[in-house]
Amino acid sequence: MNFASDNWFGASQPVMETLARHNLKAAPAYGADAVTESVTQRFSDIFEREVSVFFVGTGSVANALALAAYARPGGAVFCHRESHINVDECNCPEFMSSGSKLIPVPGHGGKITPAGLREALESVPPNIVHHGQAVAVSITQATESGTIYSVDEIAKIKAAASARSIALHMDGARFANALVSLNTSPADMTWKSGVDVLSFGATKNGCWCAEAVVFFDLEAARGFEYHRKRAGHLFSKSRFIAAQFEGYLENDHWLKNARHANEMALLLAEGLRAKGVRTVWPVEANEVFPIMDRQRFTKLQAAGAMIYEWPLREDAIQSELSADELCIRMVTSFATTVEDVARFLDAYGE
Amino acid sequence: MNFASDNWFGASQPVMETLARHNLKAAPAYGADAVTESVTQRFSDIFEREVSVFFVGTGSVANALALAAYARPGGAVFCHRESHINVDECNCPEFMSSGSKLIPVPGHGGKITPAGLREALESVPPNIVHHGQAVAVSITQATESGTIYSVDEIAKIKAAASARSIALHMDGARFANALVSLNTSPADMTWKSGVDVLSFGATKNGCWCAEAVVFFDLEAARGFEYHRKRAGHLFSKSRFIAAQFEGYLENDHWLKNARHANEMALLLAEGLRAKGVRTVWPVEANEVFPIMDRQRFTKLQAAGAMIYEWPLREDAIQSELSADELCIRMVTSFATTVEDVARFLDAYGE
Amino acid sequence: MNFASDNWFGASQPVMETLARHNLKAAPAYGADAVTESVTQRFSDIFEREVSVFFVGTGSVANALALAAYARPGGAVFCHRESHINVDECNCPEFMSSGSKLIPVPGHGGKITPAGLREALESVPPNIVHHGQAVAVSITQATESGTIYSVDEIAKIKAAASARSIALHMDGARFANALVSLNTSPADMTWKSGVDVLSFGATKNGCWCAEAVVFFDLEAARGFEYHRKRAGHLFSKSRFIAAQFEGYLENDHWLKNARHANEMALLLAEGLRAKGVRTVWPVEANEVFPIMDRQRFTKLQAAGAMIYEWPLREDAIQSELSADELCIRMVTSFATTVEDVARFLDAYGE
Amino acid sequence: MNFASDNWFGASQPVMETLARHNLKAAPAYGADAVTESVTQRFSDIFEREVSVFFVGTGSVANALALAAYARPGGAVFCHRESHINVDECNCPEFMSSGSKLIPVPGHGGKITPAGLREALESVPPNIVHHGQAVAVSITQATESGTIYSVDEIAKIKAAASARSIALHMDGARFANALVSLNTSPADMTWKSGVDVLSFGATKNGCWCAEAVVFFDLEAARGFEYHRKRAGHLFSKSRFIAAQFEGYLENDHWLKNARHANEMALLLAEGLRAKGVRTVWPVEANEVFPIMDRQRFTKLQAAGAMIYEWPLREDAIQSELSADELCIRMVTSFATTVEDVARFLDAYGE
Repeated sequence: MNFASDNWFGASQPVMETLARHNLKAAPAYGADAVTESVTQRFSDIFEREVSVFFVGTGSVANALALAAYARPGGAVFCHRESHINVDECNCPEFMSSGSKLIPVPGHGGKITPAGLREALESVPPNIVHHGQAVAVSITQATESGTIYSVDEIAKIKAAASARSIALHMDGARFANALVSLNTSPADMTWKSGVDVLSFGATKNGCWCAEAVVFFDLEAARGFEYHRKRAGHLFSKSRFIAAQFEGYLENDHWLKNARHANEMALLLAEGLRAKGVRTVWPVEANEVFPIMDRQRFTKLQAAGAMIYEWPLREDAIQSELSADELCIRMVTSFATTVEDVARFLDAYGE
Repeated sequence: MNFASDNWFGASQPVMETLARHNLKAAPAYGADAVTESVTQRFSDIFEREVSVFFVGTGSVANALALAAYARPGGAVFCHRESHINVDECNCPEFMSSGSKLIPVPGHGGKITPAGLREALESVPPNIVHHGQAVAVSITQATESGTIYSVDEIAKIKAAASARSIALHMDGARFANALVSLNTSPADMTWKSGVDVLSFGATKNGCWCAEAVVFFDLEAARGFEYHRKRAGHLFSKSRFIAAQFEGYLENDHWLKNARHANEMALLLAEGLRAKGVRTVWPVEANEVFPIMDRQRFTKLQAAGAMIYEWPLREDAIQSELSADELCIRMVTSFATTVEDVARFLDAYGE
Repeated sequence: MNFASDNWFGASQPVMETLARHNLKAAPAYGADAVTESVTQRFSDIFEREVSVFFVGTGSVANALALAAYARPGGAVFCHRESHINVDECNCPEFMSSGSKLIPVPGHGGKITPAGLREALESVPPNIVHHGQAVAVSITQATESGTIYSVDEIAKIKAAASARSIALHMDGARFANALVSLNTSPADMTWKSGVDVLSFGATKNGCWCAEAVVFFDLEAARGFEYHRKRAGHLFSKSRFIAAQFEGYLENDHWLKNARHANEMALLLAEGLRAKGVRTVWPVEANEVFPIMDRQRFTKLQAAGAMIYEWPLREDAIQSELSADELCIRMVTSFATTVEDVARFLDAYGE
Repeated sequence: MNFASDNWFGASQPVMETLARHNLKAAPAYGADAVTESVTQRFSDIFEREVSVFFVGTGSVANALALAAYARPGGAVFCHRESHINVDECNCPEFMSSGSKLIPVPGHGGKITPAGLREALESVPPNIVHHGQAVAVSITQATESGTIYSVDEIAKIKAAASARSIALHMDGARFANALVSLNTSPADMTWKSGVDVLSFGATKNGCWCAEAVVFFDLEAARGFEYHRKRAGHLFSKSRFIAAQFEGYLENDHWLKNARHANEMALLLAEGLRAKGVRTVWPVEANEVFPIMDRQRFTKLQAAGAMIYEWPLREDAIQSELSADELCIRMVTSFATTVEDVARFLDAYGE
């Protein structure tokens, strides 16, 4: 009954097998190898256009470096108040950008809105040196709240960004979960909707450390290898990140993993709702946020359920909870089984 | 006949097996797991004292963050002119330290001397704000030239460093190779000789990405987890770095790998010398630097030998070469076989 | 009728005279001169204890470097949402701290409250590496809204800061205006209330470029000269900043200037109120924020009044304005005359 | 007998008078005033073309920000080993560029040569990410050794720089001294010889704090105001830097000051040579470096001569000194008098 996080699991079998297979051979270091080359090509196929791809070791640095590529002195990056880059990366984005400011944008369910972005942009008007300069907006797909931007919503955020000539970054730590949920194409969910650069995460969905910065804005990608190297993220045996991606992308393995994780989340949500449990935010990816009282929470943990309290920061939602109630985050993954869900629901009781 | 670099090979079998074994289980993210805990304890055992250990993904960032822990504004770090941190890390040390200056110290065979360090330190005297402030000296063990500092040499460099109250960092990308070559203990080669912080590399000697920053100076380690996280080097599935170390350190596997690599280097060097080939610098670890003419070099490459020219930057050595001669770097590893060496010597001809 | 800003005026006569007097002599560069020494001593007298004083050229860098002295990786600095460091310094604080995050704290009239600070601190709990680490809180005295923290309010903010072991910084760009308004001592308004480091501004109140970073926390001041020099703020002829301070501090000149500016603000506010004009926030220093309609605003500007619109960011206040009404910022200074005020009131009409 | 440094003196009379005159008026802050505008235009006149001019407070930050405008990750800046940016600015250039590396280039008399530059550039070849990327070369005019690059020498360094597409920066802390020495035009000594950006210093030659970053490369100047502001170097009363420049540039005051300083240096050098004193490096600007024994040095200091020892770092020169001999730096300025020189020569004795 492990619903703690999708990063508690290891690599899925096809990924480990690919890693092991490539381990038998020697090959040039620092990404000058055939696997890196073929996987890079694979990314262009998946996105139906030329892309610039850079492998790194963590999602945090993928985000931070993607934003650093657009940094300028006094730079302002707009993002959701609760986004990972704003609250969970220990200022890695600020550091890699030599002091960019992250401007928190409010928004329901982890999503910013075009109107919210436009209002926030007003605090950094053009050509006023004191206020710095707007450089990028970052959205998370799927969000920290397990919700998803529709293709149309992304396009509208892009329009607001373009009106101020700032770049659109997508934090895709759970890219696959969002993609299969929308049932759209990688191209439609990214560059066709205006995304300039994407943090393409695979670690949570079946790899052990495989993240890619994918540029659709090829001009911005120029010189990016120096950003990565300066950050200490050019692995000497970089081909093993590529190898993980090879196993991950082959035979739609990544999509299958994500579909499974999302299905488990739905199964869990339906089971809870059938018991009258309220869940916060729509279940659109692989996260479920049920409300329960502390006694129940303690009982479930005692029964072996790995679940954690989630800090609710939306006042409207918080106000609906009684003093005794908590919001719990439950994350499903490629490794979650129907039995896990059933056992949890059983442990929940009536 | 792959003598290109020790980072062209994958992980050795015990390391891959440990990785695969731990992959079957789920465990807490970000290093809060049992494997990380036990491997951390193992480091204390190996060094015969309490140490603070932090796993990261690359040797470059291990060096840069170790030095960042000692950074101060206007900081000066002293290192060999040819050291990896000075010429091969794309300013990662300078960046992570927010603008430290690396002061190149000359020295024969990749090694700095206490006298050279003292002279270099004179350019950054105490309490003169214009010149900045000396903060650390970094030595590489084994060096880029395949040579090794004796325990006594390390202690003397420490004495010069202590006279100015600066820290001593050891870049141990090839720590194991140096250790078995000296036939000493990890403790003697580090903290007992005055090393404050060590970049403990395992990637080149049998892992695919396993590097550790090991602090003997426990005070300097305080808050270091924030340095690592801010640099984007806290892996969510950090336990797989720990797992690599587990396989690496078990049953003296790391020492065996290093001994083998060193032996292959000696075998190669002896074979070459028997043919009258001069080698630059003593062969003390897993690198051999033979001198050959360009025709021979081209012929060997054509025969399948993966070898590369090495830029000689010591004038005294360079002046002994004829116009047609090159210095070649040959690196052996745990995966190098006696047959590789024999085939190379055979291909070399008379 | 110049109410644009207190930084539109030059230096007051005693300051210029002191500058001119010292200009006749040669003296050691970089602050190793007798004027710097005597003025430094003067600061200790004024604050009734030993202080560490560092002269710099701008208030922005005084703030940024004061905070940099407390910076740690992933550092979070808490400040009012509308504070100068947060909205008007083009990320200078973030840059000088190598990526600190400024956490905006809401609060009426430009002032944060102990409760607001405590709530904001909850978002950066101790020992959770993902969220970074709280390092300092910064308050502005007088605030951007022309209001003032009482000595008791400062002490309570200090208590909230101390509960989390973070430093208390005071941005005193208008320190003198606040001081005479409170009719307290420099010691009471700073270290006796818990201030660790102060940006002591003199530029707005009679100098042309004279700012000092004053440390009461002498331990934090150690090595600060390297921060200043690295930022390019150690002036070779630093003694002329000291000279400005000499003229500024002599014969209570600074207090007289500030008293005058504050009196002009009160005179202006009373005159406006007598005409039925509402003013936003209490007039406690040298700023008045009247509400007027656009037509009146345009007419006044046409009549030669230098006044500007001020963006209101407090919803409660904004909601009381009609669609046609604006909030105007009017700043008085040592150079403002009774006639300026009278002429403005006259131009205002009925 | 003050030959300590040209930064020990105050502002010259015309500069102080202009400062005092402008002090009587109020004007917009942050450089949006008429004086700033007219002085900016004056720079274009002086350089016979459109330039982008930014006023800052110190020469260190002028250099650091000029170089920051060309910074890229892993950036390498080439400069003379003894240059001010390399040894006297406490890593300000490295810090403002977020970790650029300054590559010391050797050269006689404080000057780098095209051949020396080309050789140094080889250590940072194009497109090798490990070594970083060459971004700029910086020359000092006049140099720290009191020597001067001819227009032809500058053009040849530019050619070496252009071959690698890197920018040419000139540190003109003593720009006027060099200009009158060469008897050429500002245009010829800068952009016509290939200079892209200039630190135009006025502090040493008659101002108290007036430095300008002058871009001939207008594209590189775009967004530079954000660099300056982020560094805390946009003065609120920036017009007083402009005012100093107004007085400095009017009626060829700056050139007269520099001519006088240079003449005093020549007078001093000739007087010393007449006594048989050797001087190191040709006296081309306002610095003289005589060799004398320690007894003489002590005697002169006792007699009131403000002179200091200068660390000789050229081995060829050092080797010509006897164990008892020192190299002394003597700097003349606009304020040095014929009597000062005569008195010194008299004190020197036979």
